[in-house]
Amino acid sequence: MQTFEARDPLFRERVRASFDRQAFMRLLGAELTEVAPGLCEIRLPSRQELTQQHGYIHAGAVGAIADSAGGYAAFTLMGAEDSVLSVEYKLNLLAPALGDAVVARARVVKAGRTLSVTRVDVFAIRGGEETLVAAMQQTLMRLENRPDR
Amino acid sequence: MQTFEARDPLFRERVRASFDRQAFMRLLGAELTEVAPGLCEIRLPSRQELTQQHGYIHAGAVGAIADSAGGYAAFTLMGAEDSVLSVEYKLNLLAPALGDAVVARARVVKAGRTLSVTRVDVFAIRGGEETLVAAMQQTLMRLENRPDR
Amino acid sequence: MQTFEARDPLFRERVRASFDRQAFMRLLGAELTEVAPGLCEIRLPSRQELTQQHGYIHAGAVGAIADSAGGYAAFTLMGAEDSVLSVEYKLNLLAPALGDAVVARARVVKAGRTLSVTRVDVFAIRGGEETLVAAMQQTLMRLENRPDR
Amino acid sequence: MQTFEARDPLFRERVRASFDRQAFMRLLGAELTEVAPGLCEIRLPSRQELTQQHGYIHAGAVGAIADSAGGYAAFTLMGAEDSVLSVEYKLNLLAPALGDAVVARARVVKAGRTLSVTRVDVFAIRGGEETLVAAMQQTLMRLENRPDR
Repeated sequence: MQTFEARDPLFRERVRASFDRQAFMRLLGAELTEVAPGLCEIRLPSRQELTQQHGYIHAGAVGAIADSAGGYAAFTLMGAEDSVLSVEYKLNLLAPALGDAVVARARVVKAGRTLSVTRVDVFAIRGGEETLVAAMQQTLMRLENRPDR
Repeated sequence: MQTFEARDPLFRERVRASFDRQAFMRLLGAELTEVAPGLCEIRLPSRQELTQQHGYIHAGAVGAIADSAGGYAAFTLMGAEDSVLSVEYKLNLLAPALGDAVVARARVVKAGRTLSVTRVDVFAIRGGEETLVAAMQQTLMRLENRPDR
Repeated sequence: MQTFEARDPLFRERVRASFDRQAFMRLLGAELTEVAPGLCEIRLPSRQELTQQHGYIHAGAVGAIADSAGGYAAFTLMGAEDSVLSVEYKLNLLAPALGDAVVARARVVKAGRTLSVTRVDVFAIRGGEETLVAAMQQTLMRLENRPDR
Repeated sequence: MQTFEARDPLFRERVRASFDRQAFMRLLGAELTEVAPGLCEIRLPSRQELTQQHGYIHAGAVGAIADSAGGYAAFTLMGAEDSVLSVEYKLNLLAPALGDAVVARARVVKAGRTLSVTRVDVFAIRGGEETLVAAMQQTLMRLENRPDR
């Protein structure tokens, strides 16, 4: 697996500040649990308000944290004056999202000048055991000199 | 464009009852605004809780209503004793989702015995004007004899 | 459905010249059968060399003409000094590609300054009848001032 | 990374025999270079017939070997009487495919009873150096009791 270097030393603060402005992550109850160069993890504790008709966490909620995790993984590698936008994502639902929480772990596959690509794995956590419940591949765009604030 | 016939005459009631059990759609504030054979429309009024860091509706919320709309479009064509599951979806974000509401319009492209495929367009509505903000292509699975209730 | 205007009056010649330089389309035996603003059609006559293990046209050959058709549909709307690059595509295989030929029909869904999005339908043609065999959603990038020649 | 066990001890022969029946792989000049439980590698030597308008290997040829590699990675884990079908795939093009050859390396992410999901990385090889040029995420279907021969 590739390793990356962040060119903005304050990437952690930049990611956290941006995440904190995502009102939607707050509505979901999602938490930013890890930020590293080219990596990001978001955790979503289960609750009844997030379920679909069979009682599992809705694919849309799974997709939302995976999309944010991938976007912020790419954002760690961008400059202090850039912002990031999702171009598209593709999400496979692999197993029912059932457990105490779901965790989306994103890593950058390619960091380009304009476009970046990430892969995200989403796990359901139940009693300490992790099950892979979704897999995403995502494209992001860097907006130069349009600081995210 | 193809037209479809529903084999379960009570497909509208079946879709509505299932939608009403999606607690996550309630958390978002989404409304089921149209159900027809092979078609479904879901409307999500804008509010601050749904936004991302730039103030637009979060791609995850857009993806969530598009995923539900596509799933229910496919579900209209299934039998009374079936249920439906998202296998995967791919969402392109085309423009900032800004406006009074976003509306996801789904239609079935192929209704197979096991797998169905839909396309979903999401529009932002602002002062009566509609702008295409996202496009989805989605795969769904029919679960036979596992009634959705 | 949206209609588009080409800003380069010579878009047809530009597309055809570029297509003629795609040696891979020649290897497949594909023909450029229609070019209009935001639209492109490519036809691939069946032959044994294109098949997969069950005797259908290989998903890879279907994907190849769909990718080219989408790319050229986007290219019709670009400037005389631009070139086009596929960023990503997603292809659903809907039915076995069996018949006298397959035809990919692409149309632009969104033509942006940097990125464009297309949808492509692929039909198998058998004795005058058309069957939808694949559906693509694709993202393309405009490369400014890098003429395609 | 997950490891898998093949339940059919003759999976290698089964994959190789099926690959040899893919006339399209022969037309491309692709070679099956590795088969292991949940894994498959296909190599495509460069030649002018495979290029697009800028002289790189066509995204469609890259997609074709990635699709076959993913399909056979899933097929290694299926039974002696099963066959495999691509449901859909999504391919990101990350860098120009330029070099002596491209190699697609697929691994199964989830092997389900009906559906399987793979991820495929495609590398260009130039003078012993490998560059990641494409990334795929793919869904496959197991056809029970329809032997692939």
